[in-house]
Amino acid sequence: MARRSLPLSRVYRLLESGPVVMLTTASEGRANIMTMSWHTMIDFEPPIVGCVVSDRNFTFGLLESTGECVINIPTVALARQAVGCGNASGRRVDKFEAFGLTPAAASRVRAPLISECYANLECKVVDTGMVARYDLFILEVVKAWIDPSVKTPKTIHHLGGSDFMVAGRTIRLPSRKK
Amino acid sequence: MARRSLPLSRVYRLLESGPVVMLTTASEGRANIMTMSWHTMIDFEPPIVGCVVSDRNFTFGLLESTGECVINIPTVALARQAVGCGNASGRRVDKFEAFGLTPAAASRVRAPLISECYANLECKVVDTGMVARYDLFILEVVKAWIDPSVKTPKTIHHLGGSDFMVAGRTIRLPSRKK
Repeated sequence: MARRSLPLSRVYRLLESGPVVMLTTASEGRANIMTMSWHTMIDFEPPIVGCVVSDRNFTFGLLESTGECVINIPTVALARQAVGCGNASGRRVDKFEAFGLTPAAASRVRAPLISECYANLECKVVDTGMVARYDLFILEVVKAWIDPSVKTPKTIHHLGGSDFMVAGRTIRLPSRKK
Repeated sequence: MARRSLPLSRVYRLLESGPVVMLTTASEGRANIMTMSWHTMIDFEPPIVGCVVSDRNFTFGLLESTGECVINIPTVALARQAVGCGNASGRRVDKFEAFGLTPAAASRVRAPLISECYANLECKVVDTGMVARYDLFILEVVKAWIDPSVKTPKTIHHLGGSDFMVAGRTIRLPSRKK
């Protein structure tokens, strides 16, 4: 895809609808992908994101030791791969290889972008104070990329278990909020 | 609506898709409604939720002083009222009256349920350690209600500004995750 830089002030628009995302991490040449639904915006600019990564996940150690990750946002075209990454563990599987995904170099972090995702948010961990109690990492998005050809991304949203909702129609309602 | 009690173990299924919710609070006979998109599940059971309430909002003081709230989940049928509540301030407006919404008594907290919402989650604030830095409240859901007639709720999801996505079709993909 032809990725373009996205102003950081627009990042919240990609995440506040609650899509399933694919979190990439890397250490010593080994990259991993974790599928994640438990995240929230915390501030607009710089964009601050809170996300929960269980300490049972392989990603937990990579995130804690490197302090870096990329939030990659898939559309429904990648739903099978996203769920597959959620069912496998990076301890045993190279998920890029297993699911036919293409890593691309990020600009500000060592974790790779997933080329097939329509948006990629390079992140640094800025606060680990809630990790011990809640597995909650506070991230700052330091660089954002988007595929400008995707106008209304059909994101996927987890309803629990094997059920996912696909983004439907868009409506406009006059709002004074950002 | 004929509300039924929902097991707390199923609460995460209502929130992890990222819907717009309407947060109710009450103090000294005065109730308020705040529309909110910045929330995430943090744990399954008991259900722990993180949510961001700006200290500029009237709700902030009510939530901090009472330590209680209800997360009410609207469908697209209430989109106009949800956005309207987001544009008004409880300092000046009784939002139940202004938007034709019906308060109902909760069982475990003093904040009211919004009768028109298909699900209502009664919450206690259990951790304020991240409020000063991030306006991030940690809530425990202590009682949950649902309208069992709503099988596939057409929730709304904020895309920023005046744009909202309405929940689309549901797909099943075998997942080993909860």
